[in-house]
Amino acid sequence: MTQLRVGMIGTGFMGKAHALAWRNAATLFPLPLQPVALLLAEQDAALAATRAAELGFVRSTGNWRELVADPEVDVVDICTPNDMHYPMAMAAIAHGKHVYCEKPLGLNVAQSREMAAAAASAGVRTMVGFNYAKNPIAALARQMIQQGEIGRLLHFRGTHTEDYLADPNRSGGWRILRERAGMGALGDLCHIVSLALLLAGDIEELCADLQVVIPTRPAGPVGREAPTQVENEDQAHALVRFASGAIGTLECSRVAWGRKNGLTWEINGSEGSLVFDQECQNELHYFAASDPPARQGFRRILLGPEHPDYAAFCPAPGHGLGFNEQKVIEVRDFVEAIAQRRAAWPDFDVGRDIDAVLAAMEVSSRERRWVKLEPGADRPANGDGA
Amino acid sequence: MTQLRVGMIGTGFMGKAHALAWRNAATLFPLPLQPVALLLAEQDAALAATRAAELGFVRSTGNWRELVADPEVDVVDICTPNDMHYPMAMAAIAHGKHVYCEKPLGLNVAQSREMAAAAASAGVRTMVGFNYAKNPIAALARQMIQQGEIGRLLHFRGTHTEDYLADPNRSGGWRILRERAGMGALGDLCHIVSLALLLAGDIEELCADLQVVIPTRPAGPVGREAPTQVENEDQAHALVRFASGAIGTLECSRVAWGRKNGLTWEINGSEGSLVFDQECQNELHYFAASDPPARQGFRRILLGPEHPDYAAFCPAPGHGLGFNEQKVIEVRDFVEAIAQRRAAWPDFDVGRDIDAVLAAMEVSSRERRWVKLEPGADRPANGDGA
Amino acid sequence: MTQLRVGMIGTGFMGKAHALAWRNAATLFPLPLQPVALLLAEQDAALAATRAAELGFVRSTGNWRELVADPEVDVVDICTPNDMHYPMAMAAIAHGKHVYCEKPLGLNVAQSREMAAAAASAGVRTMVGFNYAKNPIAALARQMIQQGEIGRLLHFRGTHTEDYLADPNRSGGWRILRERAGMGALGDLCHIVSLALLLAGDIEELCADLQVVIPTRPAGPVGREAPTQVENEDQAHALVRFASGAIGTLECSRVAWGRKNGLTWEINGSEGSLVFDQECQNELHYFAASDPPARQGFRRILLGPEHPDYAAFCPAPGHGLGFNEQKVIEVRDFVEAIAQRRAAWPDFDVGRDIDAVLAAMEVSSRERRWVKLEPGADRPANGDGA
Amino acid sequence: MTQLRVGMIGTGFMGKAHALAWRNAATLFPLPLQPVALLLAEQDAALAATRAAELGFVRSTGNWRELVADPEVDVVDICTPNDMHYPMAMAAIAHGKHVYCEKPLGLNVAQSREMAAAAASAGVRTMVGFNYAKNPIAALARQMIQQGEIGRLLHFRGTHTEDYLADPNRSGGWRILRERAGMGALGDLCHIVSLALLLAGDIEELCADLQVVIPTRPAGPVGREAPTQVENEDQAHALVRFASGAIGTLECSRVAWGRKNGLTWEINGSEGSLVFDQECQNELHYFAASDPPARQGFRRILLGPEHPDYAAFCPAPGHGLGFNEQKVIEVRDFVEAIAQRRAAWPDFDVGRDIDAVLAAMEVSSRERRWVKLEPGADRPANGDGA
Repeated sequence: MTQLRVGMIGTGFMGKAHALAWRNAATLFPLPLQPVALLLAEQDAALAATRAAELGFVRSTGNWRELVADPEVDVVDICTPNDMHYPMAMAAIAHGKHVYCEKPLGLNVAQSREMAAAAASAGVRTMVGFNYAKNPIAALARQMIQQGEIGRLLHFRGTHTEDYLADPNRSGGWRILRERAGMGALGDLCHIVSLALLLAGDIEELCADLQVVIPTRPAGPVGREAPTQVENEDQAHALVRFASGAIGTLECSRVAWGRKNGLTWEINGSEGSLVFDQECQNELHYFAASDPPARQGFRRILLGPEHPDYAAFCPAPGHGLGFNEQKVIEVRDFVEAIAQRRAAWPDFDVGRDIDAVLAAMEVSSRERRWVKLEPGADRPANGDGA
Repeated sequence: MTQLRVGMIGTGFMGKAHALAWRNAATLFPLPLQPVALLLAEQDAALAATRAAELGFVRSTGNWRELVADPEVDVVDICTPNDMHYPMAMAAIAHGKHVYCEKPLGLNVAQSREMAAAAASAGVRTMVGFNYAKNPIAALARQMIQQGEIGRLLHFRGTHTEDYLADPNRSGGWRILRERAGMGALGDLCHIVSLALLLAGDIEELCADLQVVIPTRPAGPVGREAPTQVENEDQAHALVRFASGAIGTLECSRVAWGRKNGLTWEINGSEGSLVFDQECQNELHYFAASDPPARQGFRRILLGPEHPDYAAFCPAPGHGLGFNEQKVIEVRDFVEAIAQRRAAWPDFDVGRDIDAVLAAMEVSSRERRWVKLEPGADRPANGDGA
Repeated sequence: MTQLRVGMIGTGFMGKAHALAWRNAATLFPLPLQPVALLLAEQDAALAATRAAELGFVRSTGNWRELVADPEVDVVDICTPNDMHYPMAMAAIAHGKHVYCEKPLGLNVAQSREMAAAAASAGVRTMVGFNYAKNPIAALARQMIQQGEIGRLLHFRGTHTEDYLADPNRSGGWRILRERAGMGALGDLCHIVSLALLLAGDIEELCADLQVVIPTRPAGPVGREAPTQVENEDQAHALVRFASGAIGTLECSRVAWGRKNGLTWEINGSEGSLVFDQECQNELHYFAASDPPARQGFRRILLGPEHPDYAAFCPAPGHGLGFNEQKVIEVRDFVEAIAQRRAAWPDFDVGRDIDAVLAAMEVSSRERRWVKLEPGADRPANGDGA
Repeated sequence: MTQLRVGMIGTGFMGKAHALAWRNAATLFPLPLQPVALLLAEQDAALAATRAAELGFVRSTGNWRELVADPEVDVVDICTPNDMHYPMAMAAIAHGKHVYCEKPLGLNVAQSREMAAAAASAGVRTMVGFNYAKNPIAALARQMIQQGEIGRLLHFRGTHTEDYLADPNRSGGWRILRERAGMGALGDLCHIVSLALLLAGDIEELCADLQVVIPTRPAGPVGREAPTQVENEDQAHALVRFASGAIGTLECSRVAWGRKNGLTWEINGSEGSLVFDQECQNELHYFAASDPPARQGFRRILLGPEHPDYAAFCPAPGHGLGFNEQKVIEVRDFVEAIAQRRAAWPDFDVGRDIDAVLAAMEVSSRERRWVKLEPGADRPANGDGA
């Protein structure tokens, strides 16, 4: 089988998850190409070598520019802080590599547009790491919606709330700096936008309210001595209108005590409802209006082999997938898209559209008004590559 | 003990609940006045007499104007459809009666302002039936907030969603008609606004999005032959900014399949969080940031005799109060306010403020913009009468 | 309408709940007889008079023997500690009164047999206060089982666990004394046996394990100076075999920290399952094997007007009944049985059968062996009076 | 680093999970030995070769006897149906290999005793695949118990219920045959016994009730033409007494509709309680009696980096581990035990003790009596190798 040689940059939280996914994908799914963990880049050669040994990469480098230029590398996989997504992806595209980039795509939508345009020009395949959209529950929900099981969509409520910066004595590191992170809670937790688009379709208009709650934080690993000023939002709320006519609300917070992975959504349709909470990531709650009145109730559907993708991991229902396994499905989707020479979902066009939603939220909040979104001219229909 | 003689109008859903509350309050709580179910009004004398026998009223009448004028009546209790709140309350106030009125106060905020002003001029005591604010959980949460147990408030998410009009083949009766009901989902489910005010304080500014989802419905009990046009919103979303600096979202829906009493709220503060769902009405979920890191988690606090008001109903914890028992606490609060010659909470001033929030939502949605709310000049601090 | 004149003895936890139920039953349900709270007995005349005023009884007495002999009393309602059930009920029966007695029926099964036999001889109607069997969920579950919705019953797991004596520094009062309480956790929490019989039918054989966990407790309100020895079990477990062929387990505990009303049951049948937890007393969880494989899951059915008895309390679904409302249904059932001259469920025969199960548990535990139960010769089929 | 060369037999449900665990363990944890997936055995050479390619093994064989004798193999990993555990493990031990065997250890306790004795004689390290004991929640709970956080243990309720054979039209395959599977539901779901031992300690005495619910099933993949007689239990209940003085109940079922992985346990102690449900495998519910009375409630602790083993998989809390990740921890434990020349937990001695519990249940059920268990003479204290 033809190999797909991966060059990965960065070995933090996401880097480790990606490395495991590249390694295991071909065992768990029948892939059209055989991924090979070829080259790993880190900040210096020694660290890169150590990590390469741990993560099972063949070679390593302390210079990511070498990696993106390496003729043996087919795919560049970017797992670095947000500010490096743009230069790395642009360089990789310039070398004709397929690019797998962690979210959010760019530091801002202008970068994301350039990145999407460059990828399109170069004809390379791209994927953005919106891993929660790869939870089989999301595929199941999308399937149910498309088959009309909950009828016409009326309402979408989405949240992604966590508490990793709820403690005011905790340094925000690079995440609170505009030039390093771009947006704040919205940048970290924009996963909920990917799910809104996947499940409820394009957003046409929105009105948002962003807020910094803790204005300064202790200087942290970024090496500043004085308290650091927080430059991006701690929490964000939005009203949204979808192209379908449904309306909804979105919320992100990094200061919501007690929420560890509060990615939740509820969709009400004319024939039923679907409810999800990532903290119970193997359950979909489904209300069918067609059940007999005295026997109606939300059904707690536990993932099992009858549902999308689950059987690859386990033949027995209810045995539970974890966060890391979402990344394997993401890799599978990207490898298939590359082999089949079609757009993956979510590719850079979708990543750009998500960033456009975030940018519109920022404008809306600053100008205290509703903002319309331009429909993406060249993007694929949501999820059609999935 | 001095008696408090009650004249009640209407015997539907709320009328029955009120009648039970009036009857049982003095057994469950030590009241300063002894309520007497004296006079009941219904649409005609025969129905009134039948219901009076069932509900234990001493006398009855087919003419509510007689009731509000009856010299033996101390309190007029209005349990009719929304359009009758204004004329009945105004007449009762004109006769110097204390008035207990179901929510929403008026058909619109103009009526509500008149009602509040009239009550103030007449020096009568008033109460609006926001019974969910009387759930002991609400009192417990308010106590915890006021004692600083979750620190400074950052975020309030409130929903009140139900599915009583999710079926497009169901007639909306008077509820979908502007002249009979005033607002739609917001009118029915404005309870969530009462809880927002009680727990998070005054709302200063909001931006809302209201929507009719099902434009026509079968003619129903109101006797129209052709399909009825739906004149008020099926679902409503809003961004809100509180005077305290906290921000939040509010949602109401009468078309959310599967939600039977989806009155929920989550409050994030700088030291912890509180979460509630009326469908599990005896539980408060509390996250304390001060718990040791490896032992943190939302605590599911079940109501018991250590909490406000519960012991009156049951000496054993976790035995569960029901919807109707909230009304008993409401009656207790009103009777105490009357005896102590002070404002109850929520009185007509608060009812007017809630209607002002609803009215602002309507303006905001129609004009697609943020709307500021004028602070109520003469209203008591939230819940101080509670 | 003919009156049913009630004489009630005792005004503690249960007395108050009974008083409210007698008062409200005829408003909530169309009753064939009109209950009248006629006579109340307490330990002395003064206390009786005070409580009668609070609870709305017409007359009072400090001597329960007067009450059971009072010619105007039709029903004697016994809400006293366990040791008084037998003498009071026997006296009431001797005077030809119908008897409503709190659980457990006697201090031991010998007493219960006498009580049941006496009632049968006298031809009076009886009821034992197993109020959780009156939760509409129980009626719904029974209906579903009888209609075959979960097929043949295979397994019943029942628990009733609480933590009211988990603190070793808490006095057990009369509850830990054999002569006052009879059994311990099983005596208090034998509700789960009533539900096992109602839902799964007669128990034929059992093997139990009873244990005192905290052997001595501080002397408490019973007035002993030295620490009191605990004379009955803190926790009890049993294996059971039902006449139907189903098997199961039962557990009771009064030392289970965190459980406030841990009355739970799960029933697995050949076509589905039912699951219940009294701490969420308005929900039945129902799994239907006939649902499509990829859409299966426990349905959370919230009580509503489509279900038994709920509509009497509230026309809107999901609004939640409380513990006290179960007692109203119990009273309704008893009044109907009296009027219709038939056995109520659970009457003294059933109360005796439940006590026979408890007694068999005690023998089984003491003798470390399985014990067979004799089928009750003259008892009605389970729940047929319901 | 020294290699640890693995020879694995079988590639079904467990084989795949083991292969992934061997592959990923050294990336996720700092291991003292480097596992190498060296040799794979399947039923014939062709299948073995195919699977070896998929699962990443270096070599393959159609003959497991070659594998256990292969001088390059250090560890034999047995992932076959139950009847092959004994001959394969005995052969591997005879060749001086360390052995990792899926549960249950033997087809019966006699086999298990032989296997444990042989391993002890040969001085090889062993591990039995009770993977749910490797969920970090189990380690957290054990830690809390050992630190006295819930005080003295009083009660353990354990269940492992599933519905994989609830459908009577489903063939049971080899699982229902005594000679192939040994026991039935207890054989498959004896995981709950491993957790009882780990968390509550040795079982001293028990009384059990086993039952076949569906006596015959369609002939399935085992190739019998007539309906197959079910030879082992569909459901099993037991009362247990622990050496610590705690008492408890255990239940296993393969016919419990709706339960997909109903491995649950509740432990009540003198200072608190712990509750777990594998279907929500990342949550531990903890009640602390020391919390202030009005703020008590079960805390829902979500796994995070403060808890055992989690951080290896993910630095962010609440992101969720899956079933397969439990196997990685199991492999880590085994590799460490081998390197450190000490017993792993649960090794063959523990596997034998678990089988002794199962065997005692069978005797108890057949003879309808309590059965005492002999304490294992040479086994390590529970979990001390963990």
